[in-house]
Amino acid sequence: MIVETTVTVRYAETDQMGVAHHAVYPIWYELARTEYIKRFGLTYSQLEAMGIMTPLTELSCHYREAARYEDCLVVAARITALTPARVTFGFAIRRQGEEAPIQTGSTTLAWVDRETFRPVNMKKRFPQLFRQLQEAVEP
Amino acid sequence: MIVETTVTVRYAETDQMGVAHHAVYPIWYELARTEYIKRFGLTYSQLEAMGIMTPLTELSCHYREAARYEDCLVVAARITALTPARVTFGFAIRRQGEEAPIQTGSTTLAWVDRETFRPVNMKKRFPQLFRQLQEAVEP
Amino acid sequence: MIVETTVTVRYAETDQMGVAHHAVYPIWYELARTEYIKRFGLTYSQLEAMGIMTPLTELSCHYREAARYEDCLVVAARITALTPARVTFGFAIRRQGEEAPIQTGSTTLAWVDRETFRPVNMKKRFPQLFRQLQEAVEP
Amino acid sequence: MIVETTVTVRYAETDQMGVAHHAVYPIWYELARTEYIKRFGLTYSQLEAMGIMTPLTELSCHYREAARYEDCLVVAARITALTPARVTFGFAIRRQGEEAPIQTGSTTLAWVDRETFRPVNMKKRFPQLFRQLQEAVEP
Repeated sequence: MIVETTVTVRYAETDQMGVAHHAVYPIWYELARTEYIKRFGLTYSQLEAMGIMTPLTELSCHYREAARYEDCLVVAARITALTPARVTFGFAIRRQGEEAPIQTGSTTLAWVDRETFRPVNMKKRFPQLFRQLQEAVEP
Repeated sequence: MIVETTVTVRYAETDQMGVAHHAVYPIWYELARTEYIKRFGLTYSQLEAMGIMTPLTELSCHYREAARYEDCLVVAARITALTPARVTFGFAIRRQGEEAPIQTGSTTLAWVDRETFRPVNMKKRFPQLFRQLQEAVEP
Repeated sequence: MIVETTVTVRYAETDQMGVAHHAVYPIWYELARTEYIKRFGLTYSQLEAMGIMTPLTELSCHYREAARYEDCLVVAARITALTPARVTFGFAIRRQGEEAPIQTGSTTLAWVDRETFRPVNMKKRFPQLFRQLQEAVEP
Repeated sequence: MIVETTVTVRYAETDQMGVAHHAVYPIWYELARTEYIKRFGLTYSQLEAMGIMTPLTELSCHYREAARYEDCLVVAARITALTPARVTFGFAIRRQGEEAPIQTGSTTLAWVDRETFRPVNMKKRFPQLFRQLQEAVEP
């Protein structure tokens, strides 16, 4: 499954180079993950309420072309790998109406307990959700 | 009491106008409040651990001159008003080595309980800290 | 004229109090101004290309209720005052489906030349746009 | 050459997980690059004034332990690779007084012309600075 989220570059997201600052892309990835999760009929807020948090363990970004203020972007997100302990998302960002991505990247998140910050075995704790995620994997 | 904190403009804080984005100043105010509070021998983190949070109720900013990347700024903070329910800080930001402020402003914060987000009477809950703050007021 | 823009609270916009950080609201105001300007058939990017920039001179925020991650908010923007040198926008933010604003505020922007950062007389430089803005004022 | 820069976690940099948001680390990397460059007797602002910009082409982050509000961090930066077209910085972030890094990463930046955004051959354009950088490389 690939989920597409649109985002428009904010003025505050630009820097004096006149382009979207590179640290904004991980935030757009996060928007895309929020949308992705919703496809399973639950919000990320609900996931947190269920006692699960998902801190990042890895982030990787490849910048090809700059994004500019008011550019309308499409962030395509998919799950590329899943284990009981971790999930990896892949992202490709393109300008609306264009094909070639201007930026690609990935993030790996750990499933951790909200209170203890200790790893959670998602397969055991939420077997149904884990199976749904597994079926959605698109390597 | 007036407490001065220095801050250097970050690249990510600039926008495509080539100046520090206006939404960054409230964050610099926050740094200055953090420093101010330390003068009472406690950190803001400790205040939260004591069950107190301080959400903003009012923010006011006056921009006179732009700040630019790598500018070294001095944020002068003082408490201008204090009640058992609220505290107001005043700020003046100037470039290091200059006298005239390039930006001034104020923030009013409520004392609230960390769990309930309900108002806390600081005078009753922490009488000693309240008295210390009161003595520091500089209207 | 009142223009409404919707925005969903991002995870990165929350702080450890568990609510949207107060410095994010001015950024939402900015989104609303971007949408407002579009109603005149031009983008803010085009305005900059025409040689006009609009740095803030004043910002005022009143926080009533917190916004939380994934809250869907409506930012209502209107122009409350206009002179050849300055424009003031008023904002009211409410949760989608609710009436009472959780946050209100205003921003005053100066019309300045892109190269010199000197004031521009909008009435003289762009009489037609100025008249359109004037007709839209809603004090 | 390894250059160390200290940074204290800001309240606005935390998220509702109660830790520094992962998108803040690339901004701390940027602070460290700014400091690094200063060791060559020039500021990044001067570099821009000389017509050079350095957009990112690659970003990589590995998160081991969370950073929290008011944590005092040390960002160690070094150049790990240099070509006439690109420079790669490596980073290791640790808590002040501790040895083990809580986060590591790298960024690759392209040397581009400020006006055209086209690649610049640094070895030809600024041979002396290029040689200085080359001598500082610490793979």
